[in-house]
Amino acid sequence: MASNAFGNLFRLTSWGESHGKAIGVVIDGCPAGLPLNTDDINAALARRAPGKTPYTTPRQEADIAEIYSGVFNGKTTGAPISIIIFNKDADSSKYEPIKNILRPGHATFTYTEKYGIYDYRGGGRASARETACRVAAGAVAKKILLHFNIQTCAWLTAVGDVNATQLNIDMDITQIERATLQNDLFCPDAAAAQNMQAAIQAAMAAGDSLGGIVAFTAHGLPVGLGDPVYEKLEANLARAMLSIPASKGFEIGEGFRAAHMTGSAHNDLFTAKNNVIQTRTNHAGGTLAGISTGMPLLGCVAFKPPSSIQQPQSSVDIAGAAAEFVLPPGSRHDPCVAIRAVPVVDAMCALVLVDALLMNRAAKLDIPFALQDA
Amino acid sequence: MASNAFGNLFRLTSWGESHGKAIGVVIDGCPAGLPLNTDDINAALARRAPGKTPYTTPRQEADIAEIYSGVFNGKTTGAPISIIIFNKDADSSKYEPIKNILRPGHATFTYTEKYGIYDYRGGGRASARETACRVAAGAVAKKILLHFNIQTCAWLTAVGDVNATQLNIDMDITQIERATLQNDLFCPDAAAAQNMQAAIQAAMAAGDSLGGIVAFTAHGLPVGLGDPVYEKLEANLARAMLSIPASKGFEIGEGFRAAHMTGSAHNDLFTAKNNVIQTRTNHAGGTLAGISTGMPLLGCVAFKPPSSIQQPQSSVDIAGAAAEFVLPPGSRHDPCVAIRAVPVVDAMCALVLVDALLMNRAAKLDIPFALQDA
Amino acid sequence: MASNAFGNLFRLTSWGESHGKAIGVVIDGCPAGLPLNTDDINAALARRAPGKTPYTTPRQEADIAEIYSGVFNGKTTGAPISIIIFNKDADSSKYEPIKNILRPGHATFTYTEKYGIYDYRGGGRASARETACRVAAGAVAKKILLHFNIQTCAWLTAVGDVNATQLNIDMDITQIERATLQNDLFCPDAAAAQNMQAAIQAAMAAGDSLGGIVAFTAHGLPVGLGDPVYEKLEANLARAMLSIPASKGFEIGEGFRAAHMTGSAHNDLFTAKNNVIQTRTNHAGGTLAGISTGMPLLGCVAFKPPSSIQQPQSSVDIAGAAAEFVLPPGSRHDPCVAIRAVPVVDAMCALVLVDALLMNRAAKLDIPFALQDA
Amino acid sequence: MASNAFGNLFRLTSWGESHGKAIGVVIDGCPAGLPLNTDDINAALARRAPGKTPYTTPRQEADIAEIYSGVFNGKTTGAPISIIIFNKDADSSKYEPIKNILRPGHATFTYTEKYGIYDYRGGGRASARETACRVAAGAVAKKILLHFNIQTCAWLTAVGDVNATQLNIDMDITQIERATLQNDLFCPDAAAAQNMQAAIQAAMAAGDSLGGIVAFTAHGLPVGLGDPVYEKLEANLARAMLSIPASKGFEIGEGFRAAHMTGSAHNDLFTAKNNVIQTRTNHAGGTLAGISTGMPLLGCVAFKPPSSIQQPQSSVDIAGAAAEFVLPPGSRHDPCVAIRAVPVVDAMCALVLVDALLMNRAAKLDIPFALQDA
Repeated sequence: MASNAFGNLFRLTSWGESHGKAIGVVIDGCPAGLPLNTDDINAALARRAPGKTPYTTPRQEADIAEIYSGVFNGKTTGAPISIIIFNKDADSSKYEPIKNILRPGHATFTYTEKYGIYDYRGGGRASARETACRVAAGAVAKKILLHFNIQTCAWLTAVGDVNATQLNIDMDITQIERATLQNDLFCPDAAAAQNMQAAIQAAMAAGDSLGGIVAFTAHGLPVGLGDPVYEKLEANLARAMLSIPASKGFEIGEGFRAAHMTGSAHNDLFTAKNNVIQTRTNHAGGTLAGISTGMPLLGCVAFKPPSSIQQPQSSVDIAGAAAEFVLPPGSRHDPCVAIRAVPVVDAMCALVLVDALLMNRAAKLDIPFALQDA
Repeated sequence: MASNAFGNLFRLTSWGESHGKAIGVVIDGCPAGLPLNTDDINAALARRAPGKTPYTTPRQEADIAEIYSGVFNGKTTGAPISIIIFNKDADSSKYEPIKNILRPGHATFTYTEKYGIYDYRGGGRASARETACRVAAGAVAKKILLHFNIQTCAWLTAVGDVNATQLNIDMDITQIERATLQNDLFCPDAAAAQNMQAAIQAAMAAGDSLGGIVAFTAHGLPVGLGDPVYEKLEANLARAMLSIPASKGFEIGEGFRAAHMTGSAHNDLFTAKNNVIQTRTNHAGGTLAGISTGMPLLGCVAFKPPSSIQQPQSSVDIAGAAAEFVLPPGSRHDPCVAIRAVPVVDAMCALVLVDALLMNRAAKLDIPFALQDA
Repeated sequence: MASNAFGNLFRLTSWGESHGKAIGVVIDGCPAGLPLNTDDINAALARRAPGKTPYTTPRQEADIAEIYSGVFNGKTTGAPISIIIFNKDADSSKYEPIKNILRPGHATFTYTEKYGIYDYRGGGRASARETACRVAAGAVAKKILLHFNIQTCAWLTAVGDVNATQLNIDMDITQIERATLQNDLFCPDAAAAQNMQAAIQAAMAAGDSLGGIVAFTAHGLPVGLGDPVYEKLEANLARAMLSIPASKGFEIGEGFRAAHMTGSAHNDLFTAKNNVIQTRTNHAGGTLAGISTGMPLLGCVAFKPPSSIQQPQSSVDIAGAAAEFVLPPGSRHDPCVAIRAVPVVDAMCALVLVDALLMNRAAKLDIPFALQDA
Repeated sequence: MASNAFGNLFRLTSWGESHGKAIGVVIDGCPAGLPLNTDDINAALARRAPGKTPYTTPRQEADIAEIYSGVFNGKTTGAPISIIIFNKDADSSKYEPIKNILRPGHATFTYTEKYGIYDYRGGGRASARETACRVAAGAVAKKILLHFNIQTCAWLTAVGDVNATQLNIDMDITQIERATLQNDLFCPDAAAAQNMQAAIQAAMAAGDSLGGIVAFTAHGLPVGLGDPVYEKLEANLARAMLSIPASKGFEIGEGFRAAHMTGSAHNDLFTAKNNVIQTRTNHAGGTLAGISTGMPLLGCVAFKPPSSIQQPQSSVDIAGAAAEFVLPPGSRHDPCVAIRAVPVVDAMCALVLVDALLMNRAAKLDIPFALQDA
């Protein structure tokens, strides 16, 4: 069931293994009438694509998506949109010698125990390659949001011990986006970015890897997105983010800092600007009681250091006998997965928001005019 | 839809407002054959009940649950279990004068905008009173887990600036539980607990409130719980925790600390003890690739300081005109909601695990023997 | 899971056993702003209530529903609506002596085998008493439909060998409804109704029971309800109807008669009346490709004769030993369950339509104006 | 949402248009460990394939399925199974001249109204070509069932005015299957089959089409499949069957005949044979209270005559202006869609049963031994 599907009304199902013939995603519930073509999707995929910088895996995947259904005369028809990305640069042979040794921090152990069988080639279904499907579906979601003047953005805010200075998210989101695209690390703080690159190179030289933190925002949200209780906007965002491989933590607004604050410092006071009710501050990060307030959404996601490192590691084989795990020569991995996670976090945020937007149409007996004014 | 429901196979639907006639929860999908009576549920509710200590709201609710369906001759029948808790100590009159003023940090604004109508009495549906339903359903979940030798526990680990020393979760879970129950704060570090109490009293004296952090664990998990990709165990836990009122952050294992670590330090190396494969360390917090490893599950949840404070706050009314928000005299609130969140976090953890346990029965063509040996 | 829940966006969960403390239903996803009170629900329940005529079970249940949540100041708030009906006239003692003998045509065998435990008192969860919850939720659904000028109606069209003349569903639906309410059998053909009553009395005298057929219609549907492929309007109606106890068949439009027709006879030709496109005939029964055409919806449902008959029946006990099944003296049953199924069929039709109405709001990128003109 | 998905635990999502690049289906939730290859699927598709007999559409589609994911070393891995069938013999040009004229009995009107856009080429998403995806997924389902000694079968039982003699479903199912495969019509009554062929040829000569009825059965079911109330086995079957294009009615057991019977005639009396409890007769068709009894499942489905006929039909264009609809010369259609519906009905039956089989694993606290004995 639902393990490979995400969303209620705008619902994607992803499929495919890292070294299979292809990977793909089917979107069921995309509203009809959205202009859409492969360029929309391939532009998004290009940001996530590996092999472009010294700071990501050298695996070369053109990552050209094709739309197989659901679009006619340049517009979505309401039918499921099937997007397929063929795998090209997959070399499974080097995984053969290590297939029975448990790889630290990897899926081998738990997949084999759960299913009794594991497609170990390149990590199979557990590979981060699956996130290309999220980015492809996210590109469709982002286009819907844009139609309603909602924009999302994500960026890198920490790598190892290097923290970027906090971004002013009250800036126009176009400026934010421009800042995040100024370097290969999606880091809007140029000085920090240089230090991050140095840290990554040092880790690579030591055959090691680094963790990192990705922040995300959304501007232009109407008041009312998110359903209270178990489908709070932040609850669905948290699930979305913790479903990304290697993610270990989630914050909305002040996050864990809120635990150390007083109510008088944390409360966002209401005011009215040009007859629009808003809050003076935004410690909450854009929601109240699980529902969007109209203030910018703001949260972040922690990523662990990739478990693939160029050092021999003590382990056992699948039968429990002691064995050393050594990555096969020439194997290709990200030294800091948080970098390539940036477009994935952005995509997951957009997917949650589009679903909330469609769900919100059923909240009232009569549909509010605001929803159709786009 | 699903906004008031939680879970796939073990699915609860909760209902009720803070000042309505009653609140309740219906569990659909509880397996037949579980011994269950009201005492099981009321014992759990007693831990969450307000009015017992100076550190929680003085509202007096006996919180006596009644089981209306689904149990026959002391056992669950597979039919839905309807649990009802009648509200008794509800005084709505004092909310009347402030009903049109937007309450900082509260649901008034977003509920009114989303639905066009808001049951403001005691917070209505947005009240934390709803969490009693989670605890009631969680008590059923915990009893199922216990049948399979799985135990969960939660405790308070920080309040404001006071941090407890980290608990050794490798201890026997019965010891952990005993430690967490040694004081009213569910804090296993007695010295820290005293400082927390002092901090709360100081905040109360200043008419203010404090945030806090709750940790949770589960022992005895089989390898294999959690479905990869979008239903990773930590993804469902994150959604569960962020759906609790006032929660702002979630971590599994090292959480945000992982972002600042190297792979060689974070990786948990495999070993075999008595022919059981396990990891030497547990930085991951009990899952790999979204699936339980058999190691203790470990995570934590951040709670903001309650927004109800005894200080006047600048605000606007529902029409946008400037207004001051002052809590009505005699209104009752938690100075640190993280304390009473402890049994709620524990309940949500148990609910996620039971669902994963049942889902796992469909993972393989033939059912593994381990599942029926309990 | 979902076994006790129905609907996607307008989703009900029902609970309760025939001889338990109460039965109830929780509606999650009812749009906010609908005027609603207990009278709306109790008026609907009165139609289904037993004990009113010689042709239905003499069990006396006042069937007074109470609304426990989700309504404030006379309007729905978007929060779950919990409706509870307390059981009063339940006498379980007479089921004790027969509890181990398999009752022909009843749930005893399959429930006991599936769950290992069976609440046999009055049929427990398998009792048709559960349908009161459907009627209660259906009353809310019908009120929403009425807000959009959609009306539903059901009636009795056959009992045993007596067939009513086919109703002209092109009549105004208020006339149809008036005709169906002219007698206790909900049969708009007065002459047939008399023959049906005679047939039922003859069956009762022989200690036997009779089957019957219920028809349903809906007028005022917009074009576009129903989602193609697996959520076709008729597919969801079929599931809804076959979930009613004792139902054995479902037809939309010509139903099984269509199997014996030619395409030239069955095709409904398009025409335009006052600039509204419609079909000259309505063999299809109101849908094309699973989506409503705007023509009246028309279908019917077959009900088997109740298996509770006043004749000794050969059977076995739960251990397989031969035993005779005899209904306990004074036990109360419907001689023709199709009569009391009429308001249940109507309710299920309304529930499917409301869900389709809300789902349809997500079909297009921009919401069609027609949806908010009500 | 769910409009293109089917099933709870064994859940398929289908995609693709009749004249698009390909059609496909993704199965999420197939248990790991099932031997599976493309031959399994292509053998099933061959039965449904068009162009083989004079009684079905002459469109030539090799219908070669490829498995793109979810299978490794010849076995399912628990990951989603993506099956793709490329379209080859699609000629869209002939649909161009008639694209604005409403086609009687077809999707043009309702799709255009619902979505504002319609991929009219070959019927687009509304084409019965989508049923190839059902058959492909059904082949996987049938293989799982076979592992548990459950077999399903479907056959043609009526065409126009020709009714086959009723099949004795107490026969061994291998015999039933052999009988249904003895001719191109899947009709086990050889004499009736000849008459059906004659009737179809006469209809084709008159430029007309015929309806028909398909029956289905399943042997070897354990007691206990199906969840009571809203997920009754027959309810899910009814939804499954009414989701097949052109279906208009559904019966389980005696179906509409039950409406004209007495309880004493319809009740199936319990007996025990070789210590196995069963019923002497099987009027119910294999379920009681929505749960399988272990007796053969038996039901049938009515199909309307195809609306594509070789006669000019009066209609209107999309703007409502009078227009005549004439099928383009050389267009290819089934004269009696019930024939090719036979493997589709069989597939839908298997899909419902596999889902019920997996759901049933969560019914009891401890899993019954019977489930793992296969």
